[in-house]
This record gives sequence, structure tokens and C-alpha cells, in this order.
Amino acid sequence: MSNLQKEDFSKWYLQTIQKADLMDYSPVRGCIIFKPDGYELWEHIQEDFNKFLRSEDIRNVYFPMLIPKHFLEKEEEHVEGFAPELPWLTRVGDEELEEPYALRPTSETLIGDAFSNWINSYRDLPLEINQWANVFRWEKKTMPFLRTSEFLWQEGHTAHETEENARARTMSALEAYADLIENTLAIPVYRGQKTPSERFAGAVDTYSVEAMMRDGKAVQAGTSHYLGNNFAQAFDIKFLNRNNEHEHVYTTSWGISTRLIGSLIMVHGDEKGLVMPPKVAPTQVILIPVGPWQKNPAILDKLKELQATLRAKGLRVRIDETDNSPGYKFNEWELKGAPLRIEFGPRDLENNQVVVKMRDLDDKETVALDDLEAYITEAMDVMQKRLYESAAARYKENEHYDIDTLDQLKEHIAKSKEEGEVPGFVLIGWDGTEETEAKIKEETGFTTRNIPFNPPVEKEVDIVSGKPAKHTVWIARAY
Amino acid sequence: MSNLQKEDFSKWYLQTIQKADLMDYSPVRGCIIFKPDGYELWEHIQEDFNKFLRSEDIRNVYFPMLIPKHFLEKEEEHVEGFAPELPWLTRVGDEELEEPYALRPTSETLIGDAFSNWINSYRDLPLEINQWANVFRWEKKTMPFLRTSEFLWQEGHTAHETEENARARTMSALEAYADLIENTLAIPVYRGQKTPSERFAGAVDTYSVEAMMRDGKAVQAGTSHYLGNNFAQAFDIKFLNRNNEHEHVYTTSWGISTRLIGSLIMVHGDEKGLVMPPKVAPTQVILIPVGPWQKNPAILDKLKELQATLRAKGLRVRIDETDNSPGYKFNEWELKGAPLRIEFGPRDLENNQVVVKMRDLDDKETVALDDLEAYITEAMDVMQKRLYESAAARYKENEHYDIDTLDQLKEHIAKSKEEGEVPGFVLIGWDGTEETEAKIKEETGFTTRNIPFNPPVEKEVDIVSGKPAKHTVWIARAY
Repeated sequence: MSNLQKEDFSKWYLQTIQKADLMDYSPVRGCIIFKPDGYELWEHIQEDFNKFLRSEDIRNVYFPMLIPKHFLEKEEEHVEGFAPELPWLTRVGDEELEEPYALRPTSETLIGDAFSNWINSYRDLPLEINQWANVFRWEKKTMPFLRTSEFLWQEGHTAHETEENARARTMSALEAYADLIENTLAIPVYRGQKTPSERFAGAVDTYSVEAMMRDGKAVQAGTSHYLGNNFAQAFDIKFLNRNNEHEHVYTTSWGISTRLIGSLIMVHGDEKGLVMPPKVAPTQVILIPVGPWQKNPAILDKLKELQATLRAKGLRVRIDETDNSPGYKFNEWELKGAPLRIEFGPRDLENNQVVVKMRDLDDKETVALDDLEAYITEAMDVMQKRLYESAAARYKENEHYDIDTLDQLKEHIAKSKEEGEVPGFVLIGWDGTEETEAKIKEETGFTTRNIPFNPPVEKEVDIVSGKPAKHTVWIARAY
Repeated sequence: MSNLQKEDFSKWYLQTIQKADLMDYSPVRGCIIFKPDGYELWEHIQEDFNKFLRSEDIRNVYFPMLIPKHFLEKEEEHVEGFAPELPWLTRVGDEELEEPYALRPTSETLIGDAFSNWINSYRDLPLEINQWANVFRWEKKTMPFLRTSEFLWQEGHTAHETEENARARTMSALEAYADLIENTLAIPVYRGQKTPSERFAGAVDTYSVEAMMRDGKAVQAGTSHYLGNNFAQAFDIKFLNRNNEHEHVYTTSWGISTRLIGSLIMVHGDEKGLVMPPKVAPTQVILIPVGPWQKNPAILDKLKELQATLRAKGLRVRIDETDNSPGYKFNEWELKGAPLRIEFGPRDLENNQVVVKMRDLDDKETVALDDLEAYITEAMDVMQKRLYESAAARYKENEHYDIDTLDQLKEHIAKSKEEGEVPGFVLIGWDGTEETEAKIKEETGFTTRNIPFNPPVEKEVDIVSGKPAKHTVWIARAY
């Protein structure tokens, strides 16, 4: 990590995303402007997840953004969970509305109501839909991409005949998230179950995939909820089952959001700026003319020809033909995180070759123009895997299994600080009580991330109470 | 047209879109639920228009949905135009906000403010961006897809060095709309300029493409605005020009919305239901097993094989393997407007053939399985053109050039009603005064649609005042 990354990770993050032109601040409290490169990252995430949805025949829909007040109040835990951060539409033109509308924080309520109209018999099940939409949660502390008052997300909503089917969908959605985040964003994730205190408001069980940022803090990267009959009861979603009896459906919901963009930056970025995984990079290949290229039009001509060839292959390729110096351009495109830089000057023209520099490697390579297409495909593929492996290795370094008491945890945190290391993820034993969670949070700022499906070791004793552990849990500081 | 289409076109429309499962009503005033087939139409429109944007290097962004009150007030005409239908966010949780936020009706103001930060010199120009977003206009009368309190749209915003460049973009965006609507949606459009009274609030000039529905009424299908320096002055968007002087930029904005979905239905639909142009149909090919197919598994197997082959070619293909009768299924898929129906039974299996029925033709054809792929590609292509030609022919029948006075117009309307015909589009002479527009509207409900770039004839005399006409204008009743 660079000095600034080590000394003040938040500052590094905020500087980098602005300098790299991913976003800008806006005059709206806690809301950002997604600039073209920032928004394009979201578009690639959408394309990728839409493939999963299509493969499962889960179709996209669009529901109204406004939720009547009495709808939100139907599921008690749900409204309690969201109430403090709900923005309210109370007036149109000069007229006060009789009943205010909330700007949606999530859509279980409106969709539950629709499901109750659309579902009659087991033949209508499963009913599975997805929505790409903007949502609002007016949180006190905001952070670009990671926590904003308005954000973009996808919310899947499904209804099933049986608990078993609903639980299977809950898990397959979680696995689809893990797949997208690991393979497309090159970010390893921790799969597991949330503790009851961290559950979605209204859920029976919440599962998450969690990622570790370079500063050792966690980001909850995606969640999938088994909602049992809770919303089915609140919205009277019944079906005639195979025994000709009326029964409540079992529902699920699951979401990922534009906070994935923040995670991407915080996992891969380095002292020079962003490092974009090739699969989602807005500019995968940047072509930079070098030497006295303005005097020799054949150089730019050749680059344009190359750009056209590569674009025809589906690659995202740009040429930087500004008047800036090559050195300036190299820095600029390293800041933006373009995976592959191609330098091309008079000598390269003569020798029918280019010079290639990968964003995450130090050395340059000379490649014959005839071999370039194959080289690029291979190099991007290898870089995508390298970024994943590099993050996975960092995860391993920052995981701690040998902390058994709160004092040890505090020592670990103090020592990390002293040595300029990150405290990372700590695996603890937990007796299942909220008291333990509260105590850890109060004394260290760490929170439970999830109960991993496959913990690297099983912890025997609760870190606070010393009682026998019911679960082995990841804890960390979190965004 | 069917009887219901003729007798009560609105009723036909509302019944058809619900029965065909494109939408449902919602508990939110004037807002609809876009069901999968309805939303997918929008997705195909998005894919298509994104191609235009990419070809012009106009990139997608996302701005906050909320607009601070004082921002909206900076452009006087703009706020006046939108004020009565603006929904206001005034409260978060239990706290009243110091300054309310409007739910965006359009984003010139927030984007203008950002442009003033992003633009410094002519080197930053043109600056061209696009946003796909939800917008709000709380209109008194609503109609599914065509006019809803919340709708989905695309808004392009550009800033230029010169009036000439800005006007060129205004026109090229309009032409891109015409291209999409004519070629992808198979809906012919009338290109022209809006009269000042119908201009976008804050624009110097507004241009539109207008479409004619089966009932002869108009839908404004897309608009493109030349905004001159109006927003540049209101938001202080200045640049250092090539003479080293500070100057205001010239801006444009342009939009199409989910009302295109309504137009699609009202232009192509017939007594049996929707008729989907092949390019955007959610189901392009519906495969229906016929005869005693449940007893002969080879039939369904063959259809599944066929589905896989056609899907691999990029076609959207479904099999209807429900227990309903073939006749029921035929009606169902005609209602949904699937362009191509394939029937397949025991005899077809034996003869290695299928029976094909196009949605808009009466006859069936028998096609050898070996020729089917090529047949489908060709048939869809021909149907796409046929729908366009058929709409264009209907337009011609319902255009009227020979009406010179208000009395003649009233007679024409009365006669149309008597004969069960639609009054359609009427080309009139206009002296350029608002008085004429107001009088026409008051007496007939017709409004000016646009001043066509290439009128079929030039009208010499104003229809109301009898004074020399300054313009030849299309008028019609409009949604």
C-alpha cells in the first residue's frame, strides 16, 4: 500500500474516486453523481447479473417508487427497521397529500401486495421477479458509493410453494452474488449467515457475502433473505395448494447495489490509483502514441486501425491523442486503472510491434502486432485471475483465528495500529447472545459480519462470556 | 378495426394491456406496475438507443433524483412550467427538512449545475451525457404507459461551443428518435418543430416526432430541445473560447419515455390483441404442441430441441406446454401479440415439418424443419416492414390537407363521427398567433402537433383568422 493508503485510507479513497473521474459530489445531501466511468461499472454488473436472471427465467419488472404509508406499516418489524431513515413525499404543487408516500427503501410491501393479487394456486408458483431501481435510505453518515442517501440496486423477489423451495432460492441467489463478485469483480467473499441482530427487517434468516477492503474493514457486498411467511401474512398472499387448501406462500428477497463499485476500488486500488478488473473496466485497453507521433501521421493511423480491430472483437479500447506528454498520459491512465496500456511510436511502427504494460505489473513487454489480439485476450484473462489471487492472499494475511478473549482482541487491535497493520477479520466463538455482540461493538467497534458456512476453524468459547460457543463468527470493522 | 376498437378505443386499450399482462394498476396514484412483458419492451428500446449513444460517444451517467427547491427556481420559465405537478419531499423520519426537494420532472437544473463545474475551456466541449431514470409529473389525468405520475425515460444533455453545433445535435437526436421509432417499433413519425406555446419550459426551440394512433389521435413520441444560452445563463455555465474569452455554452436536451410502449400498442394492436413488431417482441416465436402430444413425448422433445437451436441464434422463443387446448393457446398468444406461432403435432413430426402462422396474416404455411431457421429470419424481417407499411398506409388515409376554415374542420369532425371514421391529422395554415391555437383547441379539442419539416402541401391561409399563413402545421387530438 502507498503511504496515503496506509496513513489515511478514507482520504486516499475519496481523492482517488474523484481524480479518476468516477463520481462527483452533488448539492443533494448524501447523494453523488455517477460520472460515465462510475456508471459504466454498474452497467457491466447489470449485464452480468441479467445473465443469471435470464438463465433462471427470473424476469425484470418495474414497480412504483412511492409506497403509501399504510403499506409500510403492515409488517411491523419492517417499518420499525426503516422508519428513521425514510424520506416522505407530503405535498404535490401546493397541495398537501391526505396520505404521505415514502420514497422506497426496498419494495417488499408493494410487491407483496401485487403478489397477493397475482397468486391464486400452486400453478402460479414459483413467482420470481427482479427490479433494477433507485432506493432511498437517509443515513446519518454517508460515503460515496458505499453509503449514499439514494443508491441504485437490484432487488429480487420470489414466492414459493414450500419453505424448502424458498430456502433453495435464497441460497442460489447468494451463490449467484458470490459468483459475480468473485469472478467478474475479482473480489473474494465470505459466505455466511447474519446474526439475528443484523438481519433484514422482516426476515426469518439473512445471508450475506462479505468482502475485505485493503484497510481490513468489511463491506457487506450482497444479502439474501428468507422471509418465511412474514410478508405473506402481512399482505395476505395465499395460494390453493396441491391438497386444495389455502396456504400462505414462502417468500425471499435479495439485493446487490452500487456499493459494489466502492468495494471494487477499495479492494484493488493502489498508490497509483484505481486498478480495474478487465471484465468490468470501462477502458480495457488504452492506446498511447509516443515519440514524435504528431509529425508522423502513420502512427495515429495505425492506432486507429488497431482500435477498430480490437473493438470489433468486443474490447473497450480508447486512444489518448491529447497533447499531453506520454508520461502524463501514463499516470492518468494508471490513475483510471485501465488494465492494459499499449505504447506505440516510430520505432514500433518500423518493427511492426507495440510495447505493452499491464496496470498491476512493473515490467513492459514488446509484442509483435500480429500476435497482439491473442496476447491481449490472454493477458486480460490472466490479470483478472491475478487480481483475485492477490486479494485472496491479502485476505489470508489479515484473517485471525487465535483470538479467544476480548482483551486479546483489544491487544490485537492496538498492536495492529502500532505496527501500521490492519486489524482485519477475526474469527470468534459466540454464545448466540446480543450481549456479546453489543460488548464487542462498544469496546472495539467490531461487529459480527456473518456465521461462515465453512469456517477455517471451529471456535469453542464465547469471546466475551467465556461460555461454550454456539457459533463461529467473523467479526470486523465495517463500512 | 374491431368493434370495440372502433366503439371505445380507450376501453379496448385498457382491457388489452391488462389481459395481455403488460401492466397492472398500483395503489400509488397514477402509477402502474410494469409487468415482465411490458418492462421488456422498454429494455429493447434501451438496447437500441444505447447503440446510438455509443456510436456518438455519448456516455450514460446517473444524477440524484432529488432537486433542491432553489435550483428549480433558477430558470424562471422552467419552474413555472413544472410547478403545479411537482411532488415534494419535505420530511425525513420525523424531521422537517429546511429546504424541500422536488422529485425530478427532468434534470436540466442539476445537470446544468454540474456542467458549470465540469466545463472550463472549449477543450471540454462538446460535453454530452445521457441518463436513464425515473421521473415524476403529477398530472391530473393519467393513462397507463401514455401518461403516468412516475415514468421511465432517457434524457440526453449536451453542451457546445457554438449555436450551430448545439442545433446540429438537437436535430441528430431527433433523427435518432425517428430512426428508432420507425425502424425498431415500426411506427412512422411526423418530424417537425413545436409551436412556441407547446415548447419545453426553458427551451428556445422544441422539435418533436409525432405518431398517429389507430383512433387518429396523436402521441408526441419524442422531443428534442435547443436550449440556447437559457440554462447556461441560469447556471453560469461558461467556457474559455478559442479567442481566450469567457462565453456561455449552448445546450440541448432530448428525451423519449415509456409512453412509446403505449404508442406501440395503439398503433399496431387489433381486435385480437397486441401485435408486436418482431424486433421488440418479448416472445418472437411461440411453439405450440398440437394433437395428442402428451401421449407422444417425441413431440415436446423436438420442440425443446428447436427452442434451443433458435435461442442459440438469439431469438426469443417460448414453448406453451400448459394443459390448455390448442385453440385457447392460439388466442392467448394472439392476445400477447407474438409475431410467429409454430404448431407442431404427430403428423408434423412424421413429415419433418411445422405449421407457421404469422400474427398479422390469416393464412398458415407448412414449412420443412430444415428450412425453418431461414424462414423465420425472413418472415420476421418481412413482418417488421409490413407493420410499418400498414401503419403508413393508415396514416395516409387519415391525413387531411383540404381544410381551410374552422367551420370546415368542425364539419370534418362531425362527419367523421357520423361515419365511424377517425378525424385524424389535419394540415392547416397558421398565422403564428396563440389566438388561433386557442380557438382551435376551444372549439374542436385539436391542438397543434408540429410544423413539419417537409409538409405534403403548403397552406396559404390561417384557418381561424383568414390572414396569410406563416406556417403549415399539423393539428390533431392528442394523448
